[in-house]
Amino acid sequence: MKEHTTTITPRLYETDALGHINNATLAAWFEVARVRFLESLAEDSPVFAQSWILASIQIDFVDETFYGSDVAASITEASVGNTSLSVACRMIQDERLTVRGKAVLVHMDSQSKSPTRIPDSLREKIAAL
Amino acid sequence: MKEHTTTITPRLYETDALGHINNATLAAWFEVARVRFLESLAEDSPVFAQSWILASIQIDFVDETFYGSDVAASITEASVGNTSLSVACRMIQDERLTVRGKAVLVHMDSQSKSPTRIPDSLREKIAAL
Amino acid sequence: MKEHTTTITPRLYETDALGHINNATLAAWFEVARVRFLESLAEDSPVFAQSWILASIQIDFVDETFYGSDVAASITEASVGNTSLSVACRMIQDERLTVRGKAVLVHMDSQSKSPTRIPDSLREKIAAL
Amino acid sequence: MKEHTTTITPRLYETDALGHINNATLAAWFEVARVRFLESLAEDSPVFAQSWILASIQIDFVDETFYGSDVAASITEASVGNTSLSVACRMIQDERLTVRGKAVLVHMDSQSKSPTRIPDSLREKIAAL
Repeated sequence: MKEHTTTITPRLYETDALGHINNATLAAWFEVARVRFLESLAEDSPVFAQSWILASIQIDFVDETFYGSDVAASITEASVGNTSLSVACRMIQDERLTVRGKAVLVHMDSQSKSPTRIPDSLREKIAAL
Repeated sequence: MKEHTTTITPRLYETDALGHINNATLAAWFEVARVRFLESLAEDSPVFAQSWILASIQIDFVDETFYGSDVAASITEASVGNTSLSVACRMIQDERLTVRGKAVLVHMDSQSKSPTRIPDSLREKIAAL
Repeated sequence: MKEHTTTITPRLYETDALGHINNATLAAWFEVARVRFLESLAEDSPVFAQSWILASIQIDFVDETFYGSDVAASITEASVGNTSLSVACRMIQDERLTVRGKAVLVHMDSQSKSPTRIPDSLREKIAAL
Repeated sequence: MKEHTTTITPRLYETDALGHINNATLAAWFEVARVRFLESLAEDSPVFAQSWILASIQIDFVDETFYGSDVAASITEASVGNTSLSVACRMIQDERLTVRGKAVLVHMDSQSKSPTRIPDSLREKIAAL
């Protein structure tokens, strides 16, 4: 699919005493990449980031991320189930792969607060990527 | 007044690349100390942390805070105005004063979302400290 | 094994606009539980949290975590490879299972900054749990 | 002086249960604006963000900051003492002033770890703004 990339400039307070970006921050950046991806799909449909809950994440910390140069956090795959959406993410800094992640999100009905089928309009959008 | 102390155990991700607890984290800890103080006043009155908004903070970073030993974050003063509450905070780690802060909070009416007089029950509680 | 539990009191700034503790914060709490577990093993051996790097995490967000009551974050399993340590974590709030996680850590030689065999003293400690 | 502006896109995990960006996050964004300002001065001089320590901050939370539109965080004033630098900051979202802050930084000698006179090259740069 056509990747969706969010550029993240590391912040000083996101480093830790080991001198690199802390792993918990990298999990948070993955949320940033996911939410921006969902928002990009929502532009002309009634779908918002808030209609999704996160069911699970899996992250490989492939290499260290440092303060001082931008990170490209890309959603590289998205596959749609009945009520769930699985996405893959990759972060690259200075041409090094630093993080590889997967997440499973569940589409929620905002009224009933229960899982609800992903609408066709959104399926078509993701298929078109 | 009788001080209200919250013990905070520093977390590894709260350090930064300079090897100490990051200043933004110390501002966040001051919120922890303030909220726990407000909650201690709320125990038998209809006052909750969420009825307050933060108007301003002032923080002196007196000395570095490190990972590895607990911090005692104390509310040392509280003075009540009509709709506002001013509190002073002090953080101590290993018998060193590390942070000194002040905050002004405003008591909000949850319905009208506008400032509202601090109730007498709460004034009495603070006076009794 | 004998579980190692860290008690975490949720902080107001750890909530998000959905009214619960943010998922990225839960990944950060998992680090807190892991690091405290490693530190508990280090008490009389030359092993420190800083000798480990995180290779991967996997987290299931089983149920929402809320502000207002403590969370018990427990390391429930630990299995030792040559240079790696796999741990399982579980978080419980108000008797509800909220988070289930796994992490793989790699033991690093602080000099050479490369993976190094987990020392026997530590293997014995973990086996004894 | 010529303002130095950093654009910040609020992140979902930076909101709190009150539905707005948490105050502790705003203190962290002020660090982002300060550090980027210092880095902009450092481009062709031997001055780096790490040569500064934060002595104090003062922040007025003028109005709420929300998720969903960018924030312009500007350093609007900078005045140089012997070893200290005072800066003023202003955050604007959707044409509303949301945050007004002041910070005092101290220039440190990286060797001796004690305050050291701000070099003339940097004084000239700031005067020229």
